[in-house]
Amino acid sequence: MSINYPGGTNANPFYPSPNHKPQIDNYADRGMTLEADLNQSNRYYLEREIAVIHKKPTPIQIVKVDYHKRSAAVIKEAYFNRASTTDYNGIYKGRYIDFDAKETKSQTAFPLSNFHEHQIEHLRKCVKLGGICFALIKFVRTNEIFLFKATDLFQFWDAQHNGGRKSIPKLTIQELGYNIKYRLQPLIPYLDAVDQIMD
Amino acid sequence: MSINYPGGTNANPFYPSPNHKPQIDNYADRGMTLEADLNQSNRYYLEREIAVIHKKPTPIQIVKVDYHKRSAAVIKEAYFNRASTTDYNGIYKGRYIDFDAKETKSQTAFPLSNFHEHQIEHLRKCVKLGGICFALIKFVRTNEIFLFKATDLFQFWDAQHNGGRKSIPKLTIQELGYNIKYRLQPLIPYLDAVDQIMD
Repeated sequence: MSINYPGGTNANPFYPSPNHKPQIDNYADRGMTLEADLNQSNRYYLEREIAVIHKKPTPIQIVKVDYHKRSAAVIKEAYFNRASTTDYNGIYKGRYIDFDAKETKSQTAFPLSNFHEHQIEHLRKCVKLGGICFALIKFVRTNEIFLFKATDLFQFWDAQHNGGRKSIPKLTIQELGYNIKYRLQPLIPYLDAVDQIMD
Repeated sequence: MSINYPGGTNANPFYPSPNHKPQIDNYADRGMTLEADLNQSNRYYLEREIAVIHKKPTPIQIVKVDYHKRSAAVIKEAYFNRASTTDYNGIYKGRYIDFDAKETKSQTAFPLSNFHEHQIEHLRKCVKLGGICFALIKFVRTNEIFLFKATDLFQFWDAQHNGGRKSIPKLTIQELGYNIKYRLQPLIPYLDAVDQIMD
């Protein structure tokens, strides 16, 4: 599947290249990271009570906090912990939603090294318990985003340990995945794709 | 409801008072905070694939990170952000679970000031979307824990703004809530109470 915008180009008008002056200025986060775009989309869904889905905070190991100042406490020493889950979860249409969002600069394949074993294990457990689980994969060079079902992801994950490839070909993602086209509101209407994978 | 342990006392044998020498030493986290006990319980549920429920990391605003050392990056300046959700969520029996855990030293009532407006709003939205939402309330003086449904909590929350009380009487919590008795594995078997509130 390829993105076709009015005018016949497959460039995303909301993501102008750095060499072009933006033509639309009336919304925030434009041209920022996948994370920022998803945050905007989740706010949109939240405000309309369509879904309650949040990105989890980055896990931090706090070592030293300065409580002395009259103002707020200041964390003076802390370290990044590795997350034991995916980054996003919540509820939509009564169902538990769980996913991670990953970007790749590759134009031909999504490297499986973007995932950690514990994230895959987390997704497996959520799938077993009846959750709607997937990855949002963005090919940053072309601004294409796909929803890729966790169950499809597991196939490739497991295959790589049996001599399979270390990445998922983009063609496969286009075939098995669900292309999500950028909009104004929400920027990334990924729940449309979720509708398609819900039973 | 009152907790009655063998021997006719209503003291929790796994939570001896500070004046008593612990009699059982073969498990971790005993006598620690509600959070630690819930973490242990959630690990238990996770390992047995009964439920995937995690405490969200504390939200932090990171200002300064030192990447210079060869070892891991060190966060040198950061601030605590207010969470926009409750602390716990996940999936159990295909359902979205969302709750917060609160302790009170009061022996007669649970002060509503333990909750923030935005947490109540978050719970309301999750309930609307079909989530199983509640508070776990611990009376620390007596080591009693109750599951209190979010819908019951809303009644008291709303009433306080119309001249109602600023707390929920313990008697009401005993009446409407579900007493959760400490066990060895998991320490806080709160999913037993969740079973009772699920349709």
